[in-house]
Amino acid sequence: MTKSVSGERFTVTYILSGEKTDALAAAAAEDICIEQTVEFPPELIKDNFIRENIFGRIESFSEIEDKKFRADISFAVETLASELTQFMNVMFGNISLKPGILISDITLPPQFSMQFKGPRFGVEGVRNILDAHNRPLIASAVKPMGMSAAEFADLAYKLAYGGMDIIKDDHGLSNQKFSPYKERVKVCCDAVNEANAKTGGKTLYLPNITAPFNEIVERAYFAKECGAGGVLIAPALTGFDAMKYLADDNNFALPVMSHPAFIGPYLSGGFGFTHGALLGKMMRLAGADIVVYPNFGGRFSFSKDECRDIINSCKCGFSHFTSIFPCPGGGMNFSNIPEMKSFYGNDVIYLMGGGLFKRSDDLTANCRELREIVI
Amino acid sequence: MTKSVSGERFTVTYILSGEKTDALAAAAAEDICIEQTVEFPPELIKDNFIRENIFGRIESFSEIEDKKFRADISFAVETLASELTQFMNVMFGNISLKPGILISDITLPPQFSMQFKGPRFGVEGVRNILDAHNRPLIASAVKPMGMSAAEFADLAYKLAYGGMDIIKDDHGLSNQKFSPYKERVKVCCDAVNEANAKTGGKTLYLPNITAPFNEIVERAYFAKECGAGGVLIAPALTGFDAMKYLADDNNFALPVMSHPAFIGPYLSGGFGFTHGALLGKMMRLAGADIVVYPNFGGRFSFSKDECRDIINSCKCGFSHFTSIFPCPGGGMNFSNIPEMKSFYGNDVIYLMGGGLFKRSDDLTANCRELREIVI
Repeated sequence: MTKSVSGERFTVTYILSGEKTDALAAAAAEDICIEQTVEFPPELIKDNFIRENIFGRIESFSEIEDKKFRADISFAVETLASELTQFMNVMFGNISLKPGILISDITLPPQFSMQFKGPRFGVEGVRNILDAHNRPLIASAVKPMGMSAAEFADLAYKLAYGGMDIIKDDHGLSNQKFSPYKERVKVCCDAVNEANAKTGGKTLYLPNITAPFNEIVERAYFAKECGAGGVLIAPALTGFDAMKYLADDNNFALPVMSHPAFIGPYLSGGFGFTHGALLGKMMRLAGADIVVYPNFGGRFSFSKDECRDIINSCKCGFSHFTSIFPCPGGGMNFSNIPEMKSFYGNDVIYLMGGGLFKRSDDLTANCRELREIVI
Repeated sequence: MTKSVSGERFTVTYILSGEKTDALAAAAAEDICIEQTVEFPPELIKDNFIRENIFGRIESFSEIEDKKFRADISFAVETLASELTQFMNVMFGNISLKPGILISDITLPPQFSMQFKGPRFGVEGVRNILDAHNRPLIASAVKPMGMSAAEFADLAYKLAYGGMDIIKDDHGLSNQKFSPYKERVKVCCDAVNEANAKTGGKTLYLPNITAPFNEIVERAYFAKECGAGGVLIAPALTGFDAMKYLADDNNFALPVMSHPAFIGPYLSGGFGFTHGALLGKMMRLAGADIVVYPNFGGRFSFSKDECRDIINSCKCGFSHFTSIFPCPGGGMNFSNIPEMKSFYGNDVIYLMGGGLFKRSDDLTANCRELREIVI
């Protein structure tokens, strides 16, 4: 037993909108300090070490809008045992079941944050691999589900030959019998490598390794063996720590692209996380190099402000964690690229699926056209 | 490549409340059929096999309340590749990012569902282990975080000696230095076994194995080696398939209790899942034997109807999956037990934490009193 703490504390910024008065909101903030740590009637705790160190601590509290309150609450880093799962638990475990609590920011103390590697590549690392230093990147996906591995490989070849920087599996491709994982990954890797050999390009193919618990790592390594350029994973389906595990693995050491499947309810507005806190900071903490999310104006519901929040949180100062690529998709097409360019600048990966295939029957020509418009 | 399907389809019931007219809601249902499968402009898909088999299919559609529509949508089981992660993805992956979509039911075809083992023990199996066949069960937790392993063992002893059926780790106990996992689990197992030897009881201790991706299985097996009676896991933190993996493991073969930490946003009302669909059916599909959730009237926000939905979904006909124990907690105390008894009947595990410790300074006496009231 070591009943001591370093004094290092991490801070979570909560926006409380479930309470009608200042006093009630302050009580809700106090409740977070207890619920997320000891989860026990505080009056029963006589141990001063626990009261002083384990209880969360309100560092600041203020009304930021009418009936909307901000509480910065700090917790001892020792409550986390250096675990991402436990970090998510202390931050939002039980209170996820209470209304009106939104996490808008996360701040980690320097020494503690060094225990998390964060993104291995980030913007700079992915640019280095692609030898693409001063331009936006372009990405597409092989789809739809139901095609054969050979059909996907044909698409992958055309996309690579047309100069896409990144080709990912559709996130709905797992190990269906229409194109079993290993078969698909093998032929798609070969197709992309063949196109690269012809063009002198460096297109990366990222298979989807969102998979059962005990197959994630195996699929990731199989992808690497086949020559894949990275992997795609949906952390809300696998658990965030599965992504972190791979990002941290020095033997694996390929870029990781996160997909937002199943994550939606955490981004509903008045509770859960802000878009920047979850898709920016949390993804960086969990090791994503590229974060896919639905662009504004597409077929999903993210607003321009929410997308801006993501962009900022992908590159803001956040401990030692490098900047990562925002990768907007979901309804991108040729006509909204000009608007995107002024909005996103250079550090972005445009992910165009259907829009690219729709442009004309010549997929390779469509890629070249996109490349020309974007770059 | 095998371009054929069995014809077996699973059905998800969606409640759509984001659309203002019948026509718009019908379009939203059509959109689910595409977004959750091919995620591709349907007009570009010429392959009839895909159109007929891979697209989701609206089996029924009706307005159930003013501006609230019900769509039963079926999908070919082959889209899932027998994977729970992919099941969650097809059901709710991308559309989790769209507003007003609620999953209220899941129906699996018989042959397909046999690929999922579901709960190993369920109500009957847990009752057999405890030799407690015709009464509600009682559970408590060792807490608060910040205590030493020896202090937790002392609590575990008192709780077991007082006749609690189940003692779990607080879900906030992971591997903090105040009580490292292995140290805590060893001494708590020993303490509970010692108490059992004295009383002739069969109290189970369930350590919390919510942990980093690569440590979950190791912690589970360590618990088993020490003589733990089962494990506690929060699937929203680890991924649901981590829980399923352990539940399916014939060598592990201990009861699994699921904890709702971090799951809240999926249960927000108009979108995500109904309480029964997520905490009943999904937990059974993912192998939980016992599902912890916040009781109505406690310090969380579940209503009586939502709790009833959970109870029903823990025991309703659902493929071959056995009934599981609802385990309400979060603000239980001695005074609400009478109301609980008429609400829950026999097949319930009452989880009382703070309320039990608060009753008097004599924890063992409190357990005995609770046991007397409940049984």
